[in-house]
Amino acid sequence: MPDYTPGLHILATFAAPPAALRDADSCRAFFDAQVLAFGLEKVGEAYHSFPADEAGPGGFTAVLALTESHLSIHTWPEHGLATFDVFLSNFRRDNAATVRGIYAATLAFFEGTELTKTEVRR
Amino acid sequence: MPDYTPGLHILATFAAPPAALRDADSCRAFFDAQVLAFGLEKVGEAYHSFPADEAGPGGFTAVLALTESHLSIHTWPEHGLATFDVFLSNFRRDNAATVRGIYAATLAFFEGTELTKTEVRR
Repeated sequence: MPDYTPGLHILATFAAPPAALRDADSCRAFFDAQVLAFGLEKVGEAYHSFPADEAGPGGFTAVLALTESHLSIHTWPEHGLATFDVFLSNFRRDNAATVRGIYAATLAFFEGTELTKTEVRR
Repeated sequence: MPDYTPGLHILATFAAPPAALRDADSCRAFFDAQVLAFGLEKVGEAYHSFPADEAGPGGFTAVLALTESHLSIHTWPEHGLATFDVFLSNFRRDNAATVRGIYAATLAFFEGTELTKTEVRR
Protein backbone atom coordinates (compact mmCIF):
# COMPACT_ATOMS: atom_id res chain seq x y z
CA MET A 1 0.00 0.00 0.00
CA PRO A 2 1.20 3.54 -0.72
CA ASP A 3 1.67 5.94 2.19
CA TYR A 4 -0.99 8.16 0.67
CA THR A 5 -4.35 6.53 -0.07
CA PRO A 6 -6.31 8.94 -2.26
CA GLY A 7 -9.87 7.86 -1.50
CA LEU A 8 -12.86 5.58 -1.81
CA HIS A 9 -14.08 4.11 -5.12
CA ILE A 10 -17.47 2.40 -5.42
CA LEU A 11 -18.09 0.18 -8.47
CA ALA A 12 -21.63 -1.08 -8.86
CA THR A 13 -23.91 -2.83 -11.31
CA PHE A 14 -27.61 -2.27 -10.92
CA ALA A 15 -30.80 -3.29 -12.70
CA ALA A 16 -33.14 -0.46 -13.72
CA PRO A 17 -36.12 0.27 -15.99
CA PRO A 18 -34.92 0.51 -19.61
CA ALA A 19 -36.50 3.95 -20.19
CA ALA A 20 -34.23 5.55 -17.59
CA LEU A 21 -31.23 3.73 -19.06
CA ARG A 22 -31.83 5.49 -22.41
CA ASP A 23 -32.36 9.00 -21.00
CA ALA A 24 -28.94 10.66 -21.04
CA ASP A 25 -30.43 14.17 -20.70
CA SER A 26 -32.17 13.38 -17.42
CA CYS A 27 -29.04 11.68 -16.15
CA ARG A 28 -26.95 14.75 -17.01
CA ALA A 29 -29.32 17.03 -15.07
CA PHE A 30 -29.25 14.61 -12.15
CA PHE A 31 -25.43 14.34 -12.07
CA ASP A 32 -25.05 18.13 -12.28
CA ALA A 33 -27.44 18.50 -9.36
CA GLN A 34 -25.44 15.94 -7.36
CA VAL A 35 -22.16 17.74 -8.05
CA LEU A 36 -23.77 20.92 -6.74
CA ALA A 37 -25.49 19.28 -3.77
CA PHE A 38 -22.30 17.58 -2.56
CA GLY A 39 -20.08 20.63 -3.17
CA LEU A 40 -17.91 18.98 -5.80
CA GLU A 41 -16.29 20.67 -8.80
CA LYS A 42 -16.78 19.39 -12.35
CA VAL A 43 -13.83 20.13 -14.64
CA GLY A 44 -14.95 18.23 -17.75
CA GLU A 45 -17.41 15.65 -19.02
CA ALA A 46 -18.31 13.44 -21.95
CA TYR A 47 -21.76 12.05 -22.74
CA HIS A 48 -22.40 9.70 -25.63
CA SER A 49 -25.73 8.14 -26.59
CA PHE A 50 -25.69 4.99 -28.68
CA PRO A 51 -28.17 4.85 -31.55
CA ALA A 52 -31.18 2.60 -31.23
CA ASP A 53 -30.55 0.04 -33.96
CA GLU A 54 -30.19 -3.70 -34.51
CA ALA A 55 -27.25 -3.72 -32.06
CA GLY A 56 -29.29 -2.40 -29.16
CA PRO A 57 -31.98 -0.02 -27.97
CA GLY A 58 -29.79 3.03 -27.36
CA GLY A 59 -27.97 3.14 -24.06
CA PHE A 60 -25.50 5.85 -23.12
CA THR A 61 -22.13 6.42 -21.55
CA ALA A 62 -21.14 9.34 -19.36
CA VAL A 63 -17.89 10.23 -17.65
CA LEU A 64 -17.43 13.29 -15.45
CA ALA A 65 -14.00 14.58 -14.52
CA LEU A 66 -14.09 16.18 -11.09
CA THR A 67 -11.45 18.07 -9.14
CA GLU A 68 -11.98 15.22 -6.69
CA SER A 69 -11.57 12.43 -9.36
CA HIS A 70 -14.45 11.06 -11.47
CA LEU A 71 -17.79 9.39 -11.85
CA SER A 72 -19.08 7.33 -14.75
CA ILE A 73 -22.07 5.35 -15.93
CA HIS A 74 -22.55 2.94 -18.82
CA THR A 75 -26.06 1.69 -19.54
CA TRP A 76 -27.29 -1.44 -21.32
CA PRO A 77 -31.06 -1.04 -21.75
CA GLU A 78 -31.12 -4.35 -23.66
CA HIS A 79 -30.01 -6.05 -20.45
CA GLY A 80 -31.84 -3.64 -18.12
CA LEU A 81 -28.67 -2.74 -16.27
CA ALA A 82 -26.00 -0.12 -15.74
CA THR A 83 -22.46 -0.07 -14.41
CA PHE A 84 -21.68 2.90 -12.20
CA ASP A 85 -18.44 4.25 -10.69
CA VAL A 86 -17.75 7.04 -8.29
CA PHE A 87 -14.23 7.73 -7.01
CA LEU A 88 -13.44 10.79 -4.90
CA SER A 89 -10.04 11.59 -3.50
CA ASN A 90 -9.56 12.97 -0.02
CA PHE A 91 -7.36 15.86 -1.10
CA ARG A 92 -9.27 18.63 0.70
CA ARG A 93 -11.47 16.52 3.01
CA ASP A 94 -12.58 12.93 3.60
CA ASN A 95 -15.07 12.24 0.81
CA ALA A 96 -16.02 8.66 1.69
CA ALA A 97 -19.49 9.68 2.93
CA THR A 98 -20.03 11.68 -0.26
CA VAL A 99 -19.07 8.65 -2.39
CA ARG A 100 -21.68 6.56 -0.60
CA GLY A 101 -24.22 9.38 -0.77
CA ILE A 102 -23.84 9.84 -4.53
CA TYR A 103 -24.14 6.11 -5.11
CA ALA A 104 -27.32 5.91 -3.00
CA ALA A 105 -28.81 8.92 -4.79
CA THR A 106 -27.96 7.41 -8.20
CA LEU A 107 -29.60 4.11 -7.31
CA ALA A 108 -32.72 5.99 -6.16
CA PHE A 109 -32.77 8.23 -9.26
CA PHE A 110 -32.74 5.22 -11.60
CA GLU A 111 -35.14 3.24 -9.38
CA GLY A 112 -32.34 0.69 -9.48
CA THR A 113 -31.82 -2.64 -7.76
CA GLU A 114 -28.22 -3.27 -6.77
CA LEU A 115 -26.75 -6.42 -8.32
CA THR A 116 -23.10 -6.05 -7.34
CA LYS A 117 -21.16 -3.47 -5.37
CA THR A 118 -17.42 -3.30 -4.72
CA GLU A 119 -15.75 -0.73 -2.50
CA VAL A 120 -12.05 -0.11 -3.11
CA ARG A 121 -9.95 2.06 -0.80
CA ARG A 122 -7.22 3.32 -3.04
CA MET B 1 -24.31 -11.57 -9.88
CA PRO B 2 -26.21 -10.42 -12.97
CA ASP B 3 -26.69 -12.84 -15.87
CA TYR B 4 -24.73 -10.44 -18.05
CA THR B 5 -21.28 -9.44 -16.79
CA PRO B 6 -20.11 -6.53 -18.92
CA GLY B 7 -16.34 -6.86 -18.56
CA LEU B 8 -13.07 -6.48 -16.71
CA HIS B 9 -12.07 -3.35 -14.75
CA ILE B 10 -8.53 -2.81 -13.49
CA LEU B 11 -7.97 -0.19 -10.78
CA ALA B 12 -4.35 0.56 -9.97
CA THR B 13 -2.18 2.98 -8.07
CA PHE B 14 1.41 3.37 -9.22
CA ALA B 15 4.43 5.45 -8.30
CA ALA B 16 6.06 7.38 -11.14
CA PRO B 17 8.52 10.26 -11.77
CA PRO B 18 6.78 13.58 -11.03
CA ALA B 19 7.64 15.08 -14.43
CA ALA B 20 5.51 12.49 -16.24
CA LEU B 21 2.70 13.03 -13.73
CA ARG B 22 2.50 16.71 -14.78
CA ASP B 23 2.61 16.12 -18.54
CA ALA B 24 -1.03 15.88 -19.66
CA ASP B 25 -0.14 16.51 -23.32
CA SER B 26 2.15 13.49 -23.53
CA CYS B 27 -0.42 11.37 -21.73
CA ARG B 28 -3.11 12.43 -24.20
CA ALA B 29 -0.94 11.42 -27.17
CA PHE B 30 -0.17 8.13 -25.46
CA PHE B 31 -3.82 7.33 -24.67
CA ASP B 32 -4.88 8.21 -28.23
CA ALA B 33 -2.20 5.87 -29.57
CA GLN B 34 -3.42 3.09 -27.26
CA VAL B 35 -7.03 3.55 -28.38
CA LEU B 36 -5.83 3.19 -31.97
CA ALA B 37 -3.46 0.28 -31.28
CA PHE B 38 -6.09 -1.76 -29.46
CA GLY B 39 -8.87 -0.99 -31.95
CA LEU B 40 -11.07 0.86 -29.47
CA GLU B 41 -13.36 3.80 -30.23
CA LYS B 42 -13.16 7.07 -28.27
CA VAL B 43 -16.50 8.91 -28.05
CA GLY B 44 -15.52 11.72 -25.69
CA GLU B 45 -12.85 12.87 -23.27
CA ALA B 46 -12.00 15.44 -20.62
CA TYR B 47 -8.51 16.53 -19.59
CA HIS B 48 -7.88 18.99 -16.80
CA SER B 49 -4.51 20.18 -15.54
CA PHE B 50 -4.29 21.58 -12.04
CA PRO B 51 -2.26 24.76 -11.61
CA ALA B 52 1.12 24.52 -9.94
CA ASP B 53 0.58 26.55 -6.78
CA GLU B 54 0.85 26.30 -3.00
CA ALA B 55 -1.67 23.43 -3.08
CA GLY B 56 0.48 21.25 -5.29
CA PRO B 57 2.83 21.05 -8.26
CA GLY B 58 0.23 20.65 -11.01
CA GLY B 59 -1.08 17.17 -11.59
CA PHE B 60 -3.83 16.35 -14.07
CA THR B 61 -7.00 14.36 -14.48
CA ALA B 62 -8.16 12.62 -17.64
CA VAL B 63 -11.24 10.58 -18.42
CA LEU B 64 -11.90 8.98 -21.80
CA ALA B 65 -15.34 7.73 -22.76
CA LEU B 66 -15.05 4.74 -25.07
CA THR B 67 -17.67 2.78 -26.95
CA GLU B 68 -16.32 -0.05 -24.80
CA SER B 69 -16.59 1.92 -21.46
CA HIS B 70 -13.85 4.19 -20.10
CA LEU B 71 -10.35 4.81 -18.88
CA SER B 72 -9.15 7.44 -16.43
CA ILE B 73 -6.07 8.71 -14.67
CA HIS B 74 -5.58 11.13 -11.78
CA THR B 75 -2.05 12.18 -10.92
CA TRP B 76 -0.56 13.49 -7.68
CA PRO B 77 2.98 14.67 -8.50
CA GLU B 78 3.36 15.88 -4.91
CA HIS B 79 3.04 12.24 -3.82
CA GLY B 80 4.74 10.80 -6.91
CA LEU B 81 1.74 8.63 -7.74
CA ALA B 82 -1.24 8.16 -10.01
CA THR B 83 -4.51 6.27 -9.84
CA PHE B 84 -5.49 4.57 -13.09
CA ASP B 85 -8.65 2.81 -14.25
CA VAL B 86 -9.48 0.89 -17.38
CA PHE B 87 -12.85 -0.81 -17.83
CA LEU B 88 -13.85 -2.38 -21.14
CA SER B 89 -17.11 -4.18 -21.74
CA ASN B 90 -17.33 -7.36 -23.75
CA PHE B 91 -20.15 -6.14 -25.99
CA ARG B 92 -18.51 -7.02 -29.33
CA ARG B 93 -15.68 -9.26 -28.12
CA ASP B 94 -13.87 -10.33 -24.96
CA ASN B 95 -11.72 -7.33 -24.03
CA ALA B 96 -10.03 -8.71 -20.91
CA ALA B 97 -6.66 -9.10 -22.64
CA THR B 98 -6.93 -5.54 -23.94
CA VAL B 99 -7.64 -4.24 -20.43
CA ARG B 100 -4.47 -5.92 -19.17
CA GLY B 101 -2.53 -4.75 -22.22
CA ILE B 102 -3.50 -1.10 -21.77
CA TYR B 103 -2.64 -1.22 -18.10
CA ALA B 104 0.79 -2.74 -18.82
CA ALA B 105 1.46 -0.16 -21.54
CA THR B 106 0.42 2.69 -19.21
CA LEU B 107 2.71 1.47 -16.46
CA ALA B 108 5.57 1.27 -18.98
CA PHE B 109 4.80 4.71 -20.44
CA PHE B 110 4.97 6.38 -17.02
CA GLU B 111 7.97 4.27 -15.94
CA GLY B 112 5.68 3.39 -13.06
CA THR B 113 6.00 0.99 -10.16
CA GLU B 114 2.76 -0.72 -9.25
CA LEU B 115 1.66 -0.10 -5.66
CA THR B 116 -1.82 -1.60 -5.72
CA LYS B 117 -3.90 -3.35 -8.36
CA THR B 118 -7.47 -4.61 -8.13
CA GLU B 119 -9.24 -6.54 -10.87
CA VAL B 120 -13.03 -6.47 -10.81
CA ARG B 121 -15.13 -8.65 -13.12
CA ARG B 122 -18.33 -6.71 -13.45
